[in-house]
Amino acid sequence: MNTTIPMKAEPGFTNHNADNRTYSSADKAAGKMSAPQFAQRLSRFRYQMVQAGQDAALVFSPVNLRYLFNYSGEALMAIVSPSAVVLVTDYRFIAQASQEAPAELQLKCYCRDRDRESLAQVIAAHLLQFKARRVWFEDSDISVLQWRAICEGNGLIEFSPCPPHLAAQRMVKDEWEVVQIEQAAAIADLALERALPLLQVGVSEREFATELEYQLKKAGAEDFSFATILGFAERSALPHALPGSKRLKKGDLIVLDFGAVVNGYRSDMTRSFVCGKASPLQQQMYNAVFNAQRAALDAVRAGISGAALNNIAADVLAASPFAKDAGPGLGHGVGLQLHEQPFLGPLCRQLLPENAVITIEPGIYITDFGGVRIEDDVLVTKEGCRILTKAAKQFELPERL
Amino acid sequence: MNTTIPMKAEPGFTNHNADNRTYSSADKAAGKMSAPQFAQRLSRFRYQMVQAGQDAALVFSPVNLRYLFNYSGEALMAIVSPSAVVLVTDYRFIAQASQEAPAELQLKCYCRDRDRESLAQVIAAHLLQFKARRVWFEDSDISVLQWRAICEGNGLIEFSPCPPHLAAQRMVKDEWEVVQIEQAAAIADLALERALPLLQVGVSEREFATELEYQLKKAGAEDFSFATILGFAERSALPHALPGSKRLKKGDLIVLDFGAVVNGYRSDMTRSFVCGKASPLQQQMYNAVFNAQRAALDAVRAGISGAALNNIAADVLAASPFAKDAGPGLGHGVGLQLHEQPFLGPLCRQLLPENAVITIEPGIYITDFGGVRIEDDVLVTKEGCRILTKAAKQFELPERL
Repeated sequence: MNTTIPMKAEPGFTNHNADNRTYSSADKAAGKMSAPQFAQRLSRFRYQMVQAGQDAALVFSPVNLRYLFNYSGEALMAIVSPSAVVLVTDYRFIAQASQEAPAELQLKCYCRDRDRESLAQVIAAHLLQFKARRVWFEDSDISVLQWRAICEGNGLIEFSPCPPHLAAQRMVKDEWEVVQIEQAAAIADLALERALPLLQVGVSEREFATELEYQLKKAGAEDFSFATILGFAERSALPHALPGSKRLKKGDLIVLDFGAVVNGYRSDMTRSFVCGKASPLQQQMYNAVFNAQRAALDAVRAGISGAALNNIAADVLAASPFAKDAGPGLGHGVGLQLHEQPFLGPLCRQLLPENAVITIEPGIYITDFGGVRIEDDVLVTKEGCRILTKAAKQFELPERL
Repeated sequence: MNTTIPMKAEPGFTNHNADNRTYSSADKAAGKMSAPQFAQRLSRFRYQMVQAGQDAALVFSPVNLRYLFNYSGEALMAIVSPSAVVLVTDYRFIAQASQEAPAELQLKCYCRDRDRESLAQVIAAHLLQFKARRVWFEDSDISVLQWRAICEGNGLIEFSPCPPHLAAQRMVKDEWEVVQIEQAAAIADLALERALPLLQVGVSEREFATELEYQLKKAGAEDFSFATILGFAERSALPHALPGSKRLKKGDLIVLDFGAVVNGYRSDMTRSFVCGKASPLQQQMYNAVFNAQRAALDAVRAGISGAALNNIAADVLAASPFAKDAGPGLGHGVGLQLHEQPFLGPLCRQLLPENAVITIEPGIYITDFGGVRIEDDVLVTKEGCRILTKAAKQFELPERL
C-alpha cells in the first residue's frame, strides 16, 4: 500500500508547502523490503496452542487480527485450528477480509448473515467441524455480554483464556515492523516541522491541532495514532488535554503529544515549548525533564528491566525541585497498539528484549501552572538504542516568526 | 464549549475559503439554550435501578458516562448508588472528570493509584460503604478479563447485567441534543460543499478524504464521527471502503460516507456521485436508491416500526433491476453513539419514538462494478420527520470545474 500523498497542488487543493520532501524510508515501507512474516507469526502461535493442549483458539483482538492476518477492518473474529483458519465477518467487511488475507495462509473467510445466524452458531459449527473440545479465547477483547452468548451456544466446549502469547510475540519487532514505525515517526517529525510556524501568540489549541493533523495526513499518515493532546498554559499540566478554544499567550507553556499510523504501526512523540522567553522556573522544569529523559536514553539497552529504566529517570526528577510533580511511569511499548508490552514503571520487572520499540516520556505536571513532557520512540538494541524520533528539542519558540 | 474555529487567516495558517460562514445553530449549540438535563437523566436511571431491587450500578460504557456525567475522556467508570455517584479514574483524567462533572450532581471523583490498588479493590470499598449487595453492571462494555478480576475482588456481591435502560433513554433526544446533531450535520454539509470542487479526475481517495476532514475540523467538528468511507469505481461497492491511493477517472462511481462530532453528538451522511456523465446503468442505480430513500423519508413518523420502514425501502429496491444487489438494513439511530437504537432492518419490531434521530441509507452494491448509497440524518416527529442533512443530492459531477 502506498501511503504517501503526493504534494502536487491540485485545483482547490492548496499546497501549503513548497517543500516536497518525503522521507527516505518511504520506498522501503511501501513493501520493497522483507514483508511481514505472517506464516511464521501464525505457526508460532499455533505451536503454543498445541503445546498447551488446545484444539483451537478464538481471536477477537483487532490488533492481533491485523498482526496475524493483515486485516485492517472491523467486526471480524478468527477461529484458528492447528490446520485451518476461518475469519468470520459480515457483508460489510467480507471483501476486505479476503483481499487483505495473506495468500500463503490459505484462510477461509466466512460471511455471516447477521439476521439469520448468531456468532455463537457460526463458532459452534466450525468448532464441531474441527472436532475441537478444548479452546482458547482472548478474554481481553470480548465483552461479558458477547461472551455469554457464545458460551450458551457452545455448551460442550471447554473454553479457557488465551495467555498473552501474541502480545509477547508482538513486543519484539522484525525489520519490516521497525521500518513502519520509523516511517510513522518521520511523518510526525515532518508534520511538526511544517505546522510549527503556526504555533505563535493568538493561535488556538484547536487551530494548531487541526493544521498539524492535516500535515500528518498530507505527509502520508493513514491515521492519527490517537487524539492529539495539546494544552496551553495551565492546561499543559493535564497529561491528556484535548485541544480546545484556548489561545496562546506570551509566556505560556505548551505540551504537544501526537503520532502517525503507517500500515497499522504507530508513532508517539511529545514536545514541550514555551511561547517566547522561558521564565527561570519554566527553564528549570524543562531541564529536569530533559535530563531525566537523557539519563534514560543513555541507560536503555536490551536486558534492562522496565522498573530499572523507570527508576533512572525517576531519580533525576526526584532530585529536582519538582519531585512531587513528576508523573508516574516512564513509557511503554508501541507498535500496532499504542500502549503495548513492554511497560516502563516502578513495578515492571519485565526485561526489555532486543528490538522492542518503546517510548521514553518523563514529565512534570504542576496543577494550575503547567507541564513539561518530552517523548521519543526508541528501538532497543543489544548495546543501547536507536532513537526513531528526530524532531529537534527546542524549548523556546520565537514570539513572532 | 465553543466548537467553532474562526476562519481568520493566521500567518502560516492559510485560509482556504473566502467564505466565512458558520451555521445558524452555532450559538444555540454553544449552550445558550436549554442545557442537557443531567439530573433528570440520572434520576430516571436511579428509579429503574431501585425499582429492580438493585442497590447500586457499575457504569462502564463511555457513551453512557458522557450522557450521565458529561465526561468526555477515557479510562473512567462510575459507581452509582441511590444517593451518591463516584467516578473512578487515575491521575491522567482526574482533573478532566472533575471539571466536566455537572455541578448539580455533586459527584465524587476518585483518583486511583494504578500501581497500588486494583479497580476491583476500589469498587469493593465503595460498594461496602454504600452497603450495596445487589449490583447491576454494564456487561456490554467490560471485557471478560476485567470482569473476572472485579468479581474475584467482590465475592459477596450479587452482580447482574444492567438492562439497556440508558440506551433506551438515549434513543429519545431532547431539544439540546437535537441541536447538537443538527449542527454536526450542518458542519458536514459545509465541509462537503467546500471540499467538493476537489473531487475531479486525478484526485486520489486519500487526498480528497484528507481535504474533507480538514474542512470538517475547520468548520467546527471536534472529531470525525468515524473513519471516512470513500471508494472510487469498483471500490464504491465496498460498504466500508477506507480511502486509498486510487485516483478518480471519468465515469467512476463514488461513494462518500462521513460525519462530524459536536459536543459528543454525531452526524452520519452518505452521498454518491459519478465523475462526469452517468451511464444508463449508473443512472438506473442512482434512481432506484433515490426512490427507495424517498419512499422511506415519506413514510417515516413516530409509531412506525423499524421493520415496516425498512421494508418500504426494500420493496422499492426489490422491484428494481438491482434486487439482488441491495444492501441489508435501512439505517440506525445516531447520537452520542454512531449506531444506537432504534435500528431499521427486517427484524426490528421496535416502534420509532418521537424525537429519535435516525439515518436512512438504502444502498446498492454490485461487486467489481460499483455502488450507490444515499444517507440522511432525520429527526422522527409525530407527523413525519425533519431532515437534518441538507446537502444537495447531485449525482453527476462536472468533469472539470
